[in-house]
Amino acid sequence: MPLKNTNIVSAAQTKFGALEGVTLREMFSEAVDKATIDAGIPKKDIQAAFIGSFIPEMLIHQGHTAPLLVDFAGLKGIPATRHEAACASGATALRAAVMAIESGMYDTVLVAGVEKMTSVSTSGATEALAAAADDQFESSIGLTFPGVFGIAAVAHMQKYGTTEEDMALVAVKAHKNASTNPLAQFQKEITLEKALTPRYIAWPLKLFDCSPISDGAAALVLTSNDKAKKYTDLPVKIIGSGQASASMNLCNRSDLTSFSASVEASRAAYNMAGLEAKDMDFGVVHDCFTIAEIIATEDIGFFKPGEGAKAVRDGVTALDGDRPINPMGGLAVGHPVGATGTKQAVVAYRELIGDAGPNQVAKHDTAIVHNFGGTGASCVVTIMRRGDA
Amino acid sequence: MPLKNTNIVSAAQTKFGALEGVTLREMFSEAVDKATIDAGIPKKDIQAAFIGSFIPEMLIHQGHTAPLLVDFAGLKGIPATRHEAACASGATALRAAVMAIESGMYDTVLVAGVEKMTSVSTSGATEALAAAADDQFESSIGLTFPGVFGIAAVAHMQKYGTTEEDMALVAVKAHKNASTNPLAQFQKEITLEKALTPRYIAWPLKLFDCSPISDGAAALVLTSNDKAKKYTDLPVKIIGSGQASASMNLCNRSDLTSFSASVEASRAAYNMAGLEAKDMDFGVVHDCFTIAEIIATEDIGFFKPGEGAKAVRDGVTALDGDRPINPMGGLAVGHPVGATGTKQAVVAYRELIGDAGPNQVAKHDTAIVHNFGGTGASCVVTIMRRGDA
Repeated sequence: MPLKNTNIVSAAQTKFGALEGVTLREMFSEAVDKATIDAGIPKKDIQAAFIGSFIPEMLIHQGHTAPLLVDFAGLKGIPATRHEAACASGATALRAAVMAIESGMYDTVLVAGVEKMTSVSTSGATEALAAAADDQFESSIGLTFPGVFGIAAVAHMQKYGTTEEDMALVAVKAHKNASTNPLAQFQKEITLEKALTPRYIAWPLKLFDCSPISDGAAALVLTSNDKAKKYTDLPVKIIGSGQASASMNLCNRSDLTSFSASVEASRAAYNMAGLEAKDMDFGVVHDCFTIAEIIATEDIGFFKPGEGAKAVRDGVTALDGDRPINPMGGLAVGHPVGATGTKQAVVAYRELIGDAGPNQVAKHDTAIVHNFGGTGASCVVTIMRRGDA
Repeated sequence: MPLKNTNIVSAAQTKFGALEGVTLREMFSEAVDKATIDAGIPKKDIQAAFIGSFIPEMLIHQGHTAPLLVDFAGLKGIPATRHEAACASGATALRAAVMAIESGMYDTVLVAGVEKMTSVSTSGATEALAAAADDQFESSIGLTFPGVFGIAAVAHMQKYGTTEEDMALVAVKAHKNASTNPLAQFQKEITLEKALTPRYIAWPLKLFDCSPISDGAAALVLTSNDKAKKYTDLPVKIIGSGQASASMNLCNRSDLTSFSASVEASRAAYNMAGLEAKDMDFGVVHDCFTIAEIIATEDIGFFKPGEGAKAVRDGVTALDGDRPINPMGGLAVGHPVGATGTKQAVVAYRELIGDAGPNQVAKHDTAIVHNFGGTGASCVVTIMRRGDA
């Protein structure tokens, strides 16, 4: 049965990028201000906060971030919890907020995601990120995330004939879309030739196949049907939510060309919404690496297994294609890990209400948002529909 | 309005202590087995997991713990999220699970807490724990947690005349109760003289005023009314849940002898349950330090401000007193940070169903569980009532 009572009534993000001199709490506060005050929602209406953040302990030696952040943002005293599932942290916070509203325990809540990554060196960030894989069996012996997705890329290439050029085309599309997104880390188109520059990070993944190290925050206000009218005439309803997990270790996987948690979370979300992949007008999917986007579009059922690369080649996933994917710019927007899941929801919200400017997709009634974590061991999928659709 | 649909149908913990050679995932798995298989609940009935863990990133370089843990524990593929609020992590996981059931999205879920702390040196653990305070303004300039609660103790002594002996009596009571708890880290009574041994950690707090560094896990199964009957004739109902936050920095506090988040979370939980402090038969409160227990018993309304110490002196909070507090042993049981909130719920459940053996309290219809985090910046309070009470 579709969820009935949860509405997004505002959504905003900070600029993503290397935000020198801007602290975690300052980014959070900026996103909150944009999603509340700037949207005409008084902060005093916010009853609780659900915050996604991956690894501030290692990046800025700060745990227990939730109360610190809400206090700094002027949301004094409200219940605030941090939710963590690596790159899927933001969507787990969103999902917890959905449950909070559907339970009837709250009417109006904040969902936010935030990460400050440029506080450490690139190798420091890589080491922190590696904590999202299994330290006992895999990351401790040298398997970093470019390595994980390099393996997935090789498997996809071997099984389906996907090429380095196919992945490069995902990067070209991401940078093209991001070029008109003023909040993106990179706002410059790149040529296919540039995307194919052989600066290998972990073969076959090259520089432009990898998401950058980024700072940023994103926030949304969710509210019940009764209260939604107070804030907007055009809420976006969350009608489906699914989550699944999978073994963290690649060595336990029977298939490296698909992520079972993505498939199961999508199925759960579609079932709840009573909809299918074909009913989605566009998708916002996790693209920590270009190959991740290709696999995600297959796992959420937009394309058959092995046909994700062809869809990119044919322009189907382009902003003006039949099934746009990551219309605001995907990995070129940046990937402040804990913020990404909520940023994805911000993108879907803005597209759905027709507020995406030059990045607006043509059909925008219903969207799927796919956020996964680490080696794909966590996945949260959310189905959203514009209130008047 | 009291919560109506959430039942605890089983609860268990591992032994707490320095569990050499036992990994995070192994402790978790043991607690899960005890709370499921050993309680006659098939693992396949568990639909989702809500896991509290404070800082495995710094203690064992492992983030993204939730999917890793459920996979290892034989709960393959289920949605699993980690919830973090420093020492209150366990109770935030419990509260998220309550919302999940009250929302109707799940019937039967696992709540668990786990922490592996003895993997690092004592100074390593102290540094990790310090991440629960504000790194930008307080912990980075040397304020560790014994310091924080030393300050609270001094304030309480100055304002109310509380003495070092009063605090020592809390330690004596904790060790007495723990002496008959085979799962406790310390199972030996201590004399008042020993508790007063001047091994100062942060004046006026001495060794026995401080919780130890511990490993351990605890787990509960929660289920809706419809399903509860399948597992037990004597469920414990969660009828009230409150959470609040406060400024993390001591320098922002107007009062150091009370924690506003505790007061507000208690009020919210009592209001939801439609009950008052006088209706509680016993309490399980956060006692990371002895002074924390004294203040908590005041903040939850068991005693007036400043009268918590007298209650200890008069034996009111003893196992056989009128208002027992921490009847299974409190800080002498150990404090594996992320596990503590769920361990507290395990204690309340066992007392409520009359399964506490030599630690059984006389009146056991209704209980309050108080779990707070860090400098008191987070607090979650849960009101539980035996199903037939």
